Amino acid sequence: MNPTLEIFSQGEEIVTGQTVDTNAAWLSQQAVELGFAVTRHTAVGDKLDDLVSLLKEIAWRADCCFCTGGLGPTSDDLTAAAVAKAFDIPLVFDDIAFAQIQQFFINRKRMMPESNRKQAMLPQGAERLDNDVGTAPGFAVQHQRCWFVFLPGVPSEMRSIFLDKIKPTLNQRFLLQPSTLVSIKTFGIGESDIQQRIDKIDIPADVQLGFRASLNEVQTKLLFPADYPYANSTALVTKITETLGDKVFAVDGLGEVTGDLVYAVDQLMRAGKYTLALVETASQGLMAGLCTGSEWLLETRYEHSLERLAQKLAIAVTQDDLLETAKVIALTTQETSGADFILVQLYSGDFQVLQDKDKLMVLHTVLLVGNQCYPASQSVAGLIKRKQNQAALLALDLLRRYLQRISSDALAGYSVIL
Amino acid sequence: MNPTLEIFSQGEEIVTGQTVDTNAAWLSQQAVELGFAVTRHTAVGDKLDDLVSLLKEIAWRADCCFCTGGLGPTSDDLTAAAVAKAFDIPLVFDDIAFAQIQQFFINRKRMMPESNRKQAMLPQGAERLDNDVGTAPGFAVQHQRCWFVFLPGVPSEMRSIFLDKIKPTLNQRFLLQPSTLVSIKTFGIGESDIQQRIDKIDIPADVQLGFRASLNEVQTKLLFPADYPYANSTALVTKITETLGDKVFAVDGLGEVTGDLVYAVDQLMRAGKYTLALVETASQGLMAGLCTGSEWLLETRYEHSLERLAQKLAIAVTQDDLLETAKVIALTTQETSGADFILVQLYSGDFQVLQDKDKLMVLHTVLLVGNQCYPASQSVAGLIKRKQNQAALLALDLLRRYLQRISSDALAGYSVIL
Repeated sequence: MNPTLEIFSQGEEIVTGQTVDTNAAWLSQQAVELGFAVTRHTAVGDKLDDLVSLLKEIAWRADCCFCTGGLGPTSDDLTAAAVAKAFDIPLVFDDIAFAQIQQFFINRKRMMPESNRKQAMLPQGAERLDNDVGTAPGFAVQHQRCWFVFLPGVPSEMRSIFLDKIKPTLNQRFLLQPSTLVSIKTFGIGESDIQQRIDKIDIPADVQLGFRASLNEVQTKLLFPADYPYANSTALVTKITETLGDKVFAVDGLGEVTGDLVYAVDQLMRAGKYTLALVETASQGLMAGLCTGSEWLLETRYEHSLERLAQKLAIAVTQDDLLETAKVIALTTQETSGADFILVQLYSGDFQVLQDKDKLMVLHTVLLVGNQCYPASQSVAGLIKRKQNQAALLALDLLRRYLQRISSDALAGYSVIL
Repeated sequence: MNPTLEIFSQGEEIVTGQTVDTNAAWLSQQAVELGFAVTRHTAVGDKLDDLVSLLKEIAWRADCCFCTGGLGPTSDDLTAAAVAKAFDIPLVFDDIAFAQIQQFFINRKRMMPESNRKQAMLPQGAERLDNDVGTAPGFAVQHQRCWFVFLPGVPSEMRSIFLDKIKPTLNQRFLLQPSTLVSIKTFGIGESDIQQRIDKIDIPADVQLGFRASLNEVQTKLLFPADYPYANSTALVTKITETLGDKVFAVDGLGEVTGDLVYAVDQLMRAGKYTLALVETASQGLMAGLCTGSEWLLETRYEHSLERLAQKLAIAVTQDDLLETAKVIALTTQETSGADFILVQLYSGDFQVLQDKDKLMVLHTVLLVGNQCYPASQSVAGLIKRKQNQAALLALDLLRRYLQRISSDALAGYSVIL
């Protein structure tokens, strides 16, 4: 059994939604990777009674707790006072902490406000956690079952203290056996379709299966226990990726660090030193915008209507066969851009189809490579932002699947030669 | 006393830190604005016992609870089961919910996987919350002290159901005395500069002043108590907006519903029935991409380098005077596009300036209207995503300030005629 850990965030700005609690997510990721079972996140405002009762709850419920916020100099920073009350420990003045706080102001050539004196009051017997980047020192204290670590709420200070002072010591306090999380990232297939496809595969009871769906990808997640044989986990992952075929664009957690779909496209484009030109309609510039700072993207153009586009390119087009029209546009673009790959995307109907959330939009995309043309027709529904995002990703995914195929063919050829 | 409200988020991806819980922040903001006292956020993973005990806790502790996640079709979606167990209510098959789920798949011309059937099982007596944008219906149920609202975890679905089905009904269930939150939205001026400018203005002690800064805007927030006289609050807001001048693009909370900077541009463009053409460099399609589904955007083009752009447009350009070059490009684009407004943005130096986070990027933007040319040179620093985003927004803001000026001139003229 992994030791359990809770995250506890303090601050009115968090409970009122003024600040999104990124600290909780960051600390949780760290904890999971280290081998804790993170069981709960809680956030409360700057109210002493809430803080006290929550600290008491956690003290018997979890093995460890990472707490952020409430260490500042102002009257609404109550963490130390809450710890004193909840665990019945007096606060004592810490000379070293005070000297460090004074030094912080001396270094910045500023007068120390009297209110900062309060930050040197720490619970008796607590371990002081020096803050090299801000004024508030953190502290750690054991109470009943739980080891509490109190960190500042400012993300840079919190991360710095955690990485320097806490992370290296956790292995001495806890018996940590980190499990392995593998994420199989797919595009163009839904969560429930994935589940149906892998239902036939036998997944051992001690491997935890989960899914995470967003607009941009679906992740199929496998959590392997610490002692799970590596060969067995790779065999299982391979079985699943083979079942999902070219919907899979990346696998995380088996040594490789991967990113999103656009990252996959970027890696493949760089590896082959290819160049790309785009003609966008539904995605309205977003296809190019997603390819952040890509050297390989030579140009994009967007026109409000197919008629405008045809006029600009001085070609005759027809709504009757949009794949054929897209091919004609791609050929013209190939000539003027000199790019290796041309992606052209058109959609059936007029602008209303894009704007109306109740209208299905049918996309016609072609990828032109040399004199080979790869067409795809797909439909997208929903709000306009979703339609535009999916349109951009579907086109880039057509390119990704092509690149993945030729790169694995190249690898296959390579291994035969070896 | 305001009724108390808790936020409860479910999902392994949240407790393990894979996903930052933006739903909790968004719902809290809504709740505070409506007049609730938000007392606690809690997140737990997909474990039935944890869910059950937490639901029981909240049922006696809070007046209302907004819950997200766990409504999906897969085996780790346990919310309905947890509610059934915690509150001792059987799950029953909801014919209408099932018909809606089936319709969702029919609309997308897809087979409904058998697993989605589960989403139609709702706690007996619960109020079904129809989901117009996804498969999972939400539901609401009263237990002991607390009214629980269960919403999908996908942010777009959660927001849509909340805004359509929950927000309008809360006043009938709870005695809410909302304080008035006014947000003055600015672009192109930092938080501390704003603070300095408004330091001279006398802000009464019972009005709470706060700031919220993001990449896309800075909001200066004024929270007025429920009984604060309307005339006094508008007078104070006017004083502040006058001090901040044309950095202000919108004021939220005084009756008008406003959006972000792009929304402001969209409203002004529609009102004047204008059209726009863009030439992008640093923003790489993002400028167009931000103007989601705008009828008034006729075209955009992006070229990887100024040389390519010059060649395409068959014009001679120089790096020596980029504002002049941008003007030449704008004139050519005006001719070929037929748009009322032309925005052209160039930047000094090469692609490295865009990609290197330690290099400052200097942008040269021109807005061409008829034969009038409005130039702006600004610098942007940071990671490439930030640079691209700021580049797009700075150009659109140049257009926004022009549109705001001519529209207020038009209004001024109008009132004189009256």
